[in-house]
Amino acid sequence: MGISPKDFENLQSRLTGRRTSAKSSAADPVMPVTVRRILGIDPSLRGTGLGVISFEGLQPAVVHQETIRCPASWLRTRCLGQIASMVRKVVQTHQPEVCVVEGLFFAQNLKTALTMGEARGAAIAAVAEADIPIYEMAPRKVKLAIVGFGAAQKLAVAKMVQRLLALESLPDPDAADALALGLAFAHEARRVTGSSRRRL
Amino acid sequence: MGISPKDFENLQSRLTGRRTSAKSSAADPVMPVTVRRILGIDPSLRGTGLGVISFEGLQPAVVHQETIRCPASWLRTRCLGQIASMVRKVVQTHQPEVCVVEGLFFAQNLKTALTMGEARGAAIAAVAEADIPIYEMAPRKVKLAIVGFGAAQKLAVAKMVQRLLALESLPDPDAADALALGLAFAHEARRVTGSSRRRL
Repeated sequence: MGISPKDFENLQSRLTGRRTSAKSSAADPVMPVTVRRILGIDPSLRGTGLGVISFEGLQPAVVHQETIRCPASWLRTRCLGQIASMVRKVVQTHQPEVCVVEGLFFAQNLKTALTMGEARGAAIAAVAEADIPIYEMAPRKVKLAIVGFGAAQKLAVAKMVQRLLALESLPDPDAADALALGLAFAHEARRVTGSSRRRL
Repeated sequence: MGISPKDFENLQSRLTGRRTSAKSSAADPVMPVTVRRILGIDPSLRGTGLGVISFEGLQPAVVHQETIRCPASWLRTRCLGQIASMVRKVVQTHQPEVCVVEGLFFAQNLKTALTMGEARGAAIAAVAEADIPIYEMAPRKVKLAIVGFGAAQKLAVAKMVQRLLALESLPDPDAADALALGLAFAHEARRVTGSSRRRL
């Protein structure tokens, strides 16, 4: 994947926050010390990825990961109900302090944008009802932060997420995207300047 | 609005179901005799129209009407949470047996489609979680059924809704659109052939 051991070490140290200075914390109101759990969501009608990462210890750790699967035989409305219901359950169980959603900055056509929007709306509403601040990050920025290559394939992201979070097995690709969002968000939040995330 | 007294009478009789025959009921599994309350939703990020119509008596009656207003100062995510929360409340309070949502069949651009989709997703998820069947109808078909003119303006729809439902005052335009959806759906459900509604 073209990432050197040194780059990997740097990324790891950024993710664990060991280089975090008082100055960078003060400059970034987004990621206060109280933020210990990030919920990442990669919304999609048939396979929404969810991942909760804890930053309580020295290493970021996976608290929860899942893909909400909605079979093709299900009506679209049933999928939306399922997404809202499962997201709410994860929020209630794992109490994340912040949520980051994969941004959609293009779509093939209006119909796709509408369907994607519906899945996003169902997921976001469930988080917003719990008064959790929600951000979005572009998939390209997430891949760039995690793999070092903005056009990385799903498998490359999953492999890097497995490595960074010391997971025993390769995560499901959609859940891996959600975990990657959480990692990239934490990484971003520790940078003093610039920002790829946007408050929704 | 170009509707004759005779047309109005016909529409009224269709809406109250006085012409409903056993045959048309059998041919249409959508609107069984048990359906007495229809929830209409016209979703939009800043002003979602909601209307519950009861068909328990001889005349259709308004059980509930409201517009969920989300000020421009609110974050998009807060609006989505509010939509889901208010829709859920109306469903729990008024227990509709069926829901009809205004279909979106065009949008100015992908961004608009995405935003519209998010509002729809938040509203639909709240209804779907309550296991209520959801349909959609194109705005043009609704206007055609209610006003007799597919490109009717919002005010004309509101005026006709006021007349058909014997409301003392003119309903808010967004709530009126939601009530119009309910009326048009009931009208459609009593037709033996053809259908403008689509199960979502």
